[in-house]
Amino acid sequence: METLRATAEGAIPVQTKEVKAFGSEAADALLQQLNITRRNLTAQDVEIEILFCGVCHSDLHTVKNEWHSTVYPCVPGHEIVGRVINIGDEVTKFKVGDLAAVGCMVDSCRHCDYCKEGLEQYCEEGNTGTYNSPDKHLGTRTYGGYSERIVVDEDFVLRVPENLDLAATAPLLCAGITTYSPLRHWNVGPGQKVGVVGIGGLGHMAVKLAKAMGAEVIVFTTSPSKVEDAKRLGADDVVLSKEQGQMSRYAGKLHFILDAVSAKHDINAYLSQLRVDGSLVLVGAPEQPLPVAAFSLIPYRRSFAGSMIGGIAETQEMLDFCGKHNIVADIEMINIQQINEAYERLLKGDVKYRFVIDMASLKK
Amino acid sequence: METLRATAEGAIPVQTKEVKAFGSEAADALLQQLNITRRNLTAQDVEIEILFCGVCHSDLHTVKNEWHSTVYPCVPGHEIVGRVINIGDEVTKFKVGDLAAVGCMVDSCRHCDYCKEGLEQYCEEGNTGTYNSPDKHLGTRTYGGYSERIVVDEDFVLRVPENLDLAATAPLLCAGITTYSPLRHWNVGPGQKVGVVGIGGLGHMAVKLAKAMGAEVIVFTTSPSKVEDAKRLGADDVVLSKEQGQMSRYAGKLHFILDAVSAKHDINAYLSQLRVDGSLVLVGAPEQPLPVAAFSLIPYRRSFAGSMIGGIAETQEMLDFCGKHNIVADIEMINIQQINEAYERLLKGDVKYRFVIDMASLKK
Repeated sequence: METLRATAEGAIPVQTKEVKAFGSEAADALLQQLNITRRNLTAQDVEIEILFCGVCHSDLHTVKNEWHSTVYPCVPGHEIVGRVINIGDEVTKFKVGDLAAVGCMVDSCRHCDYCKEGLEQYCEEGNTGTYNSPDKHLGTRTYGGYSERIVVDEDFVLRVPENLDLAATAPLLCAGITTYSPLRHWNVGPGQKVGVVGIGGLGHMAVKLAKAMGAEVIVFTTSPSKVEDAKRLGADDVVLSKEQGQMSRYAGKLHFILDAVSAKHDINAYLSQLRVDGSLVLVGAPEQPLPVAAFSLIPYRRSFAGSMIGGIAETQEMLDFCGKHNIVADIEMINIQQINEAYERLLKGDVKYRFVIDMASLKK
Repeated sequence: METLRATAEGAIPVQTKEVKAFGSEAADALLQQLNITRRNLTAQDVEIEILFCGVCHSDLHTVKNEWHSTVYPCVPGHEIVGRVINIGDEVTKFKVGDLAAVGCMVDSCRHCDYCKEGLEQYCEEGNTGTYNSPDKHLGTRTYGGYSERIVVDEDFVLRVPENLDLAATAPLLCAGITTYSPLRHWNVGPGQKVGVVGIGGLGHMAVKLAKAMGAEVIVFTTSPSKVEDAKRLGADDVVLSKEQGQMSRYAGKLHFILDAVSAKHDINAYLSQLRVDGSLVLVGAPEQPLPVAAFSLIPYRRSFAGSMIGGIAETQEMLDFCGKHNIVADIEMINIQQINEAYERLLKGDVKYRFVIDMASLKK
């Protein structure tokens, strides 16, 4: 099949094929089955049969155009694991039959300072997101993991440890790296008290990872119902943030806090938990600005920071770390036909802790 | 003279003497001459004849009880330089006749983790401020540098480089270390673009220090009238933050920003100037919380931090650095009798860039 790609020099034919996918045609439409176009393999490409795809809150934001940048049709999904079914002539890192994974990016400029440092997520020209980004090959938008197959440059494809449950590995590609990267960047390790605020898709991974890195992990939650589960995930202690007196227990004592709450919350109450030189890193993205008091930062030289996913090399490092420590996400498996219902439940926080789509269901 | 110090074990007599000072008896009173009590020297103490004392905005906040913790009478002043006139039996670091300086602290617990690391400013038990802190020796409050003499433990007394103008050295003890410490802590140096927001007592020191550390310095100001002066101080470029298009010139390009503005301002506009992993450090203290957007931090892994003065060893390092690079503050000298008028002008920002009191005027 041939697709015409519009360029400044005129229309260029690109060899393509159709694959089945699940996506949305409008902000107010439900997701449904549709066909999308994937390019034929270039010499550097790997074609992956998608076996499982995690469901990230970003999928929902994008499908509903909540970030005001969605081009339809939109096929989300950036927690992709599967098996290599085809490789380009020059591919060296993968062979047919290998397990493989794709996360939040499928390309970047590769020549800016950040790309050269392995920080492709902060590419100066903007990285190419796995979905809803301009597709450099086809001139359309990129389509994500709610589909049968995906074609990705081998430099943006990850190796998957063979010992992990494959479905539960999928969420590592976004929830895993989003929490692993700041824990590593801020040197979390033994002898440190680390707070995790919010136990959801991201937070539950942060608990497992920080614990495996050797830190003492303190979970902050508003829900008494999550105490037991937080401890099962590895938390050494749980602070019920709304109960009187609880927030004073670790005041000034934490080395690092990972804040995975995307709703409005009192950031000063959490900043005050930090020791001198401690950092609170936001990975959730509350819609409204958070008021920060100067005196939450100045008296203890504290930092309030943010972090976004991780680079490709670091994502591989995270997968290898999870393989070594036998870490995967806690998941609830669904069929692709249940995705709209899963989104409804996601909005209510009704999932422990990540939906993963069994992509075999798309073949039905 | 003997003063009775109230303790849990009863009243303890302490040998003291009276010295002349300038201070305030109430939040709404003008500063006027009064007498205060200084302890007789212990074995570890150094007595300093105060020659010059800088006027910090904190003096004004405290005198007017704007931080709601002032005990009267209040004698401010924590930018103190003078000459040693007496030493205790066990003093080894100073001899009579030496130049000496005292900054924002005169003591700390000395045994907590922070004190042991040389971070006395963050002492877990709270450092003893040079004024308006509980006085461990007399049981009253500490009195600052608007006075004839001060008695301080030698461990909290600094050596002053002989080559610097002594009056213009005084502001280094607060404005100098408050800006030097974060510039050093965040490793400002050659090859870096460093922003300084706000050109006042702190900001003008930050420009001089960052420049001497080898950075390219970009000043942000709202005042066209400050452009020329910023360049004279060492700025490589000046951004007029309120002029259209100016704020885009360094967007995403700065490695570090020192923010010395204590009024309300749009912190997100400055955070967006930072490169990946850049930090904006607040040393001014706006009264109201500053709204910080998650997307000002997350996409470039930026940090919004605070910093407070510096430790004793670092303050000495700063003074030595200034001696080596011949750096002092730009000052306007006043007599102590002009202090109330100077406060009025300080409130209007009408000083380039620090008032320093010639303490000889107190003898008149």
